[in-house]
Amino acid sequence: MLIHESPLTRKLSAFVALSGDDLETLARFHQRRRTFQAGHELIHEGGKHQSAFILAEGWACSYKMLPDGERQIVDFQVPGDFLGLRSVLFRATDHSVEAVTRIEASEVLASDIFDGFATAPRLATAILWAASRDEAMVVEHLVSIGRRSADERMAHLLLELGARLMLVGTGDKTGFDCPLTQYHLADALGLSAVHVNRVLRHLREEGLVTFQKGRVDFNDLPGLTRLADFDLDYLDQDGPLLR
Amino acid sequence: MLIHESPLTRKLSAFVALSGDDLETLARFHQRRRTFQAGHELIHEGGKHQSAFILAEGWACSYKMLPDGERQIVDFQVPGDFLGLRSVLFRATDHSVEAVTRIEASEVLASDIFDGFATAPRLATAILWAASRDEAMVVEHLVSIGRRSADERMAHLLLELGARLMLVGTGDKTGFDCPLTQYHLADALGLSAVHVNRVLRHLREEGLVTFQKGRVDFNDLPGLTRLADFDLDYLDQDGPLLR
Repeated sequence: MLIHESPLTRKLSAFVALSGDDLETLARFHQRRRTFQAGHELIHEGGKHQSAFILAEGWACSYKMLPDGERQIVDFQVPGDFLGLRSVLFRATDHSVEAVTRIEASEVLASDIFDGFATAPRLATAILWAASRDEAMVVEHLVSIGRRSADERMAHLLLELGARLMLVGTGDKTGFDCPLTQYHLADALGLSAVHVNRVLRHLREEGLVTFQKGRVDFNDLPGLTRLADFDLDYLDQDGPLLR
Repeated sequence: MLIHESPLTRKLSAFVALSGDDLETLARFHQRRRTFQAGHELIHEGGKHQSAFILAEGWACSYKMLPDGERQIVDFQVPGDFLGLRSVLFRATDHSVEAVTRIEASEVLASDIFDGFATAPRLATAILWAASRDEAMVVEHLVSIGRRSADERMAHLLLELGARLMLVGTGDKTGFDCPLTQYHLADALGLSAVHVNRVLRHLREEGLVTFQKGRVDFNDLPGLTRLADFDLDYLDQDGPLLR
């Protein structure tokens, strides 16, 4: 794959037109390409001075384990996303990242980041933008769990995933392929798996969205957007998107 | 105030030793110093191309309003923190920021960030670190609301605030001055104001922590830390801290 066709390049290009220097630096971030099987834990909470990764293919999820063995999924990662960017900057990693599907990802070392920032300052602002966007998503997940009903949470998450995938070219207004199980959705939304099933059935019966056989179909995008009070601003991605 | 004594400089120095160039760039971030009264909304959700601020004195909070008029407080900001860093990078701001007390803050424009990154790449990595730390805090707040009991949430938040204030020199192992009301705590923790009062009384009766008359006193720091399963890793601040 040429570097200007990578999902990360597509994503960062929503923020800034990358120069030749920027693209060259970004290419160096993609030198150590690796493959991981579904279920593999790439990044371990509490690990010291770990690498980060740029996801090229497949899905991952970031999470924290609680002392009682419960899991809170913080976010899902799709192609073009960083996995564990904090883990190269922090002394000890504060969260874990697991492959949801078989994934391909490029390992990024702390030195790649530091050297890259010195030679490509525009790329540095683009990476700060991407990190800010990741934070904005976690904020929305906090608002969902704190203040939104189960139906609204589910609608909001599915719309967010659809918009993110559209930005990197693997989804459209009709929907997207989705490898998540009811257990992933439950751990992300603070619901039980049984409750997740009930919510999905309800949204389907209302004619809003269908999640079946690894595929999310938006049956009524304006209706679903209204239900979730979904506003794309926090993803800061102009262009041919959901709206 | 000299720039190497500013709260932001103190905070960033926990990540990297700032050079003369870095400090000079940082000084330019502090040129437009402004004062705001308690309750003033500095940053408005939905606003276009707004400024960010560096908080020098006082407390602020960031939040999102829901369609039904409910508020979810995402985080509190203390001296040395950015207010609305995303609002200079995003086309439209995804959250609001309000002064909790009278505050002093320096306005930062997008051009300050872009020019600063070009001249001081080490400062750029330090700002990415600070943004990553902000995200790590939102992650903890998500885990609190999703998975922790009311007692554990409160303990975790008070320990976090104590650790953050200690890093910038306005708190110690015995506690810190805290201007928050029960309504702030309720909107942050997803509890009612009545529930907040009950939780604070319970923690006080257990001899763990007392929040009275604008002051948080850690009566049993190890016990409180155990209750919250509080691990400082996510703040990534070495040094003479809570542990």
